Amino acid sequence: MTGRQLHLNAFLMNTGHHEASWRLPESDPYASVDVAHYRNLAQVAERGTFDSLFLADGPVLFNSVGQRPSGTLEPLTLLTALAGATEHIGLIATASTSYNLPYNLARTFASLDHISGGRAGWNIVTTAGAEAARNFGLDAEPSHATRYQRAAEFLDVAFKLWDSWEDDLIVGDKAAGVWGDTAKLHPAGHRGPYFQVEGALNVPRSPQGYPLLVQAGSSEDGKSFAARYAEAVFTAQQTLGDAQEFYADVKARTRRAGRDPEGIKILPGIVPVIGDTEAEARRREAELEDHIVYEHGLYQLAHILHVEPGALDLDAGLPADLPTEDEIEGAKSRYTLVVELARRESLTVRELIGRLGGGRGHRTFTGTPEQVADAIEEWFHAGAADGFNIMPPVLPSGLELFVDHVVPILRSRGLLRTEYTPGQTLRERYGLPRPDNQYAAGAPAYALAAL
Amino acid sequence: MTGRQLHLNAFLMNTGHHEASWRLPESDPYASVDVAHYRNLAQVAERGTFDSLFLADGPVLFNSVGQRPSGTLEPLTLLTALAGATEHIGLIATASTSYNLPYNLARTFASLDHISGGRAGWNIVTTAGAEAARNFGLDAEPSHATRYQRAAEFLDVAFKLWDSWEDDLIVGDKAAGVWGDTAKLHPAGHRGPYFQVEGALNVPRSPQGYPLLVQAGSSEDGKSFAARYAEAVFTAQQTLGDAQEFYADVKARTRRAGRDPEGIKILPGIVPVIGDTEAEARRREAELEDHIVYEHGLYQLAHILHVEPGALDLDAGLPADLPTEDEIEGAKSRYTLVVELARRESLTVRELIGRLGGGRGHRTFTGTPEQVADAIEEWFHAGAADGFNIMPPVLPSGLELFVDHVVPILRSRGLLRTEYTPGQTLRERYGLPRPDNQYAAGAPAYALAAL
Repeated sequence: MTGRQLHLNAFLMNTGHHEASWRLPESDPYASVDVAHYRNLAQVAERGTFDSLFLADGPVLFNSVGQRPSGTLEPLTLLTALAGATEHIGLIATASTSYNLPYNLARTFASLDHISGGRAGWNIVTTAGAEAARNFGLDAEPSHATRYQRAAEFLDVAFKLWDSWEDDLIVGDKAAGVWGDTAKLHPAGHRGPYFQVEGALNVPRSPQGYPLLVQAGSSEDGKSFAARYAEAVFTAQQTLGDAQEFYADVKARTRRAGRDPEGIKILPGIVPVIGDTEAEARRREAELEDHIVYEHGLYQLAHILHVEPGALDLDAGLPADLPTEDEIEGAKSRYTLVVELARRESLTVRELIGRLGGGRGHRTFTGTPEQVADAIEEWFHAGAADGFNIMPPVLPSGLELFVDHVVPILRSRGLLRTEYTPGQTLRERYGLPRPDNQYAAGAPAYALAAL
Repeated sequence: MTGRQLHLNAFLMNTGHHEASWRLPESDPYASVDVAHYRNLAQVAERGTFDSLFLADGPVLFNSVGQRPSGTLEPLTLLTALAGATEHIGLIATASTSYNLPYNLARTFASLDHISGGRAGWNIVTTAGAEAARNFGLDAEPSHATRYQRAAEFLDVAFKLWDSWEDDLIVGDKAAGVWGDTAKLHPAGHRGPYFQVEGALNVPRSPQGYPLLVQAGSSEDGKSFAARYAEAVFTAQQTLGDAQEFYADVKARTRRAGRDPEGIKILPGIVPVIGDTEAEARRREAELEDHIVYEHGLYQLAHILHVEPGALDLDAGLPADLPTEDEIEGAKSRYTLVVELARRESLTVRELIGRLGGGRGHRTFTGTPEQVADAIEEWFHAGAADGFNIMPPVLPSGLELFVDHVVPILRSRGLLRTEYTPGQTLRERYGLPRPDNQYAAGAPAYALAAL
């Protein structure tokens, strides 16, 4: 039982990842603002000894409120609430580098890391789409390249702020009236093209130093960014071959960036549709597809493809004259995945919407608990994954099924911990080292040179 | 027991409001980042049936880390954690309109209001000081007037976002596949000099509609802002006369602004130093003063007064040639309060530092529980206060003393609730109405005109 083990992340999303999940009799249409619903999900995932919870995010109202649950609790706020309802599980919040200010975001993550005892993670996104831009004083979406440049500088500032307190700054010498060692405080003194931040953070360095850094973009810019910064990568991969190629590519890029490829964990997303028998699992899948409103899906698909909805015919294949990935300023890798899926399997628009409705491009594994565990083990041992981002189609039932039926199989195969090691931080749980403080004595010279 | 009752707010600050509190044997120098410390304080305040908890804030590292506890958990994050550790008490976070983006801040407050079941409050500040400005890309502090103009527009945007979902938007019609009524969604469509925000908020309208709005600036701009927006006001008043004058002034301004003066609650800050006997209370006060490092206090005082530290002599009075309030772009009303206190009581700089060390300009009530209760009752009945912002000099002990010894007296006099009314929101506890949605049918015409 001492071999390489899976890292499992529970990707939470109101009533589930299937877009029609809210229409099932069991689902609560108000779940998206119900902290008790999320508290229960967090506790189920902790029962399954998952590494972490994860929430996606954009500072914009996605989708139409007419069609499906829209609007929910802000992830950092919700995960802070869940910190108090759990003891071990990591808490990974998505936050945008394009639409946040680094001083504020660095503070919030440092605070969550303190409050949770070292369980905070940050899924770093640059946020595609003009709709978000227009909530922040911009008329149009910044270019993909601009967003990634800003993201890199945002990280640079965040590192300076998180490191601005050395770990042992606080001395608390009551007799002398000296609370902290001022020589161990390092104001950011940052002046760059996107940000100018002068002072030190007003939060002492947190248990992990800073949150676990996660990245989820699979475009060229996204993979380069991941190779440089990320400690975990969430990705959507439809086939084992694609997943192996992505895995090898990101590990190689990480090595070329001068980092240990073991220091970055690759977690493809999977949508497990589980039944006692394969037939029952198929029936569940069909039940969900029956609840899709295809006319709604058409609008969403048109948005991903950057075409007018009128250009798509539900009962025909994708049009031949789509834009190329280079012409997309938004979510590039999602665009390419969708187009390739439709063409590879010769899907009609209706069939494509059915497939995307299950996991927005993530791979669905449908079957018995054994079959789902087999699929997980296959990808894990075939160099396609260090673990998985579990995206239950329906919540809470899909997470309960996974934890109660798939997790025991994974444990019995020695692929998953049977209990948490007490007191571990999220980064320790992912098998990663605590980051050095760039200003501390003994820190690598390249970090000091950044001053 | 059905007369007018006090509103009590617990102003939490690491080891206490006395600047030397951290040096007492009982104090934990690491309390500022210890969520368990704050959880205990919240539970003590809830035992005392306080209306609310409150945390001050600025996005900057105040003071020198050499002198006293500096840096703490970000207030919205900390209060979200405390929401789960409490059931009834309100949660008031300070947040700056100068250094936040309205879409993000409106989201966070709406999320906290959902998570806490309607217990969120926002202490709206414009944040004085060049140090904060330099953490956000500015070289100098924006002028007092500019900060208040931005604050007014920030509120306008926040109201549009909080109202962008009508309360009954979610219909959850599973059979028809209709989750929400799109006619009840109102994108902000805001284009102003400071902010352009196009879309709707991505959080459904929260239990209170929006957080209780609190204000704490007592300058002319601050009082005008309070009269227009605030539902509760925190203020520093040294004498009963000053407090009565301030109370009457703010209530009159509120009436002139077209609002019910009952709709704004005035809460002066008080520092209760409590002993079984008056002598013991005096001894506690002296013990704290003995721990002040006066050389550190000199720097702080010089900062408030906008003079060089060298211009102050510990054993002399304030210099005669101080700037006027008009020349101060920072915390105007705090400046005037300090100068008037020194001149009124002919204090030396050392004595002034001693007085300010206890509550940074807030009034200290030193005595037995009876004497403290008497002072509270006197101000309450003399038209000086609707309640108090309780600022214990030492935490947790000062809050425990107040809750265990002063609260029972206030209850026995019918001045304070003996238990919470279950299910009340923070705004209901303050006796204030839930705000209408400006877009809803039946909303006042002036609100619709804001479209």
